[in-house]
Amino acid sequence: MKFTVLTLFPEMFAPLNESILKRAQQGKLIEVELINFREYAMSKHKNVDDIPYGGGAGMVLKPEPIYAAIGDLPETVGSRRIVLLTPQGEPFKQEKAQEWSQLDEIVFICGHYEGFDERIRYLADEEISLGDFVLTGGELAAMVMIDAVARLIPGVLGEEDSAVEDSHSMGALEYPHYTRPRVFEGMEVPEVLLSGHHMKIQAWRRKESLRRTFFRRPELFAELEFSPEDYPLLEELAEEYPELAEESWRWEHLKPKSKRRRPKKSP
Amino acid sequence: MKFTVLTLFPEMFAPLNESILKRAQQGKLIEVELINFREYAMSKHKNVDDIPYGGGAGMVLKPEPIYAAIGDLPETVGSRRIVLLTPQGEPFKQEKAQEWSQLDEIVFICGHYEGFDERIRYLADEEISLGDFVLTGGELAAMVMIDAVARLIPGVLGEEDSAVEDSHSMGALEYPHYTRPRVFEGMEVPEVLLSGHHMKIQAWRRKESLRRTFFRRPELFAELEFSPEDYPLLEELAEEYPELAEESWRWEHLKPKSKRRRPKKSP
Repeated sequence: MKFTVLTLFPEMFAPLNESILKRAQQGKLIEVELINFREYAMSKHKNVDDIPYGGGAGMVLKPEPIYAAIGDLPETVGSRRIVLLTPQGEPFKQEKAQEWSQLDEIVFICGHYEGFDERIRYLADEEISLGDFVLTGGELAAMVMIDAVARLIPGVLGEEDSAVEDSHSMGALEYPHYTRPRVFEGMEVPEVLLSGHHMKIQAWRRKESLRRTFFRRPELFAELEFSPEDYPLLEELAEEYPELAEESWRWEHLKPKSKRRRPKKSP
Repeated sequence: MKFTVLTLFPEMFAPLNESILKRAQQGKLIEVELINFREYAMSKHKNVDDIPYGGGAGMVLKPEPIYAAIGDLPETVGSRRIVLLTPQGEPFKQEKAQEWSQLDEIVFICGHYEGFDERIRYLADEEISLGDFVLTGGELAAMVMIDAVARLIPGVLGEEDSAVEDSHSMGALEYPHYTRPRVFEGMEVPEVLLSGHHMKIQAWRRKESLRRTFFRRPELFAELEFSPEDYPLLEELAEEYPELAEESWRWEHLKPKSKRRRPKKSP
């Protein structure tokens, strides 16, 4: 998969040459092309911005250099998506990363400091925002999205990494992890994790995951779908927390049917 | 303000040496210290992670090196906040950036690939997530947050930049920007922006900002507080969109009282 980035600050993309993304590029699983659209500026001084019509502070990115850079992209084999990074866009989520990971190429347009001329929007297939906060430019947002998408491409994560049940990819927050030492500063690893009892460990982890999601991110909990294995865990948690018990209608249908005992054979 | 980052990948932080953040560091408005907590690993091979108790794939960050690195921080003058970057944390928003910009120091703890030993959480004053997506590590998240916070520190943005009414700092999405040329690929700059009529331009911008927020981010629109100047703009939009008219109870109280005409003086 190819990531093309239109930016005025290509040097900012050094983090893509570390760790997993470095290996992914070396292994030709992903390709990153950085295009400085200042090279497409037509004026002598290579201006990419200009004062806003209607007045006001700040500069506005001109449409011509970005149109020229997009127009100069090589033909792509397959599916290309042009994404404008802007705080006015749809907030980026894991589902978007999943969707994009099926594409052949994503082109990110990064602004810096200033606003975009409105006509640049017409170039974009999508407008995406990293979140509800203000950044200096789209560069860090592009890197975050490249990281999130690249991880989903088969082969990018080693077998070990990919097996990790990541937060958010499962809908619920992750369960607590523990490693050695068994006692650290007086804090002990929960007994169950030392038991070697696989089923009990699995149940404990799921229960803690549900507990954490309910308290920390109730809006995520509200969207969770439960399995029959969750029923006893949810019932236990509901006994601990009355506020959780109020939601018991969400898992009542999972209650196991009481098994009818086979009538004893008459002797 | 000081940003201290505990990370296994200090080289990833090159983007902080560009643009506004570079200037802010040169001007001593912000200071960034990168601490590789691998230096605090106690084993011969400088291990920072270990296999999880209870089994499962993936490695877990050990508590000792991070505790040692935090314990080794110099005394701080003023307020220090220790922030653990984790998908299980509270989602980062502009209000958090505002809050943090009042502190003297933030210490970010970045994981990479794997989970944290649960006991590391006890070190942190806050657990924060960049958003609902899965990243390889906390490094890009830390850089995003440093950018968002640093911009709010007086003097970091030049006068020109700071005057820009950024999206999200106002609650509503930004209005459309235009710069030269007046006609580009058949698309024209709206007449009103060429009028030179300051009041009309201001009203147009606010109206477009409200329109965009209503359609793109209804959940943000639902939290907007309106001013008396918004009343005529909202009424105009409500005429265009019946779905917006349904919310008119939110601005009805802003309707200007009809001025009683002064009785004409009798001649």
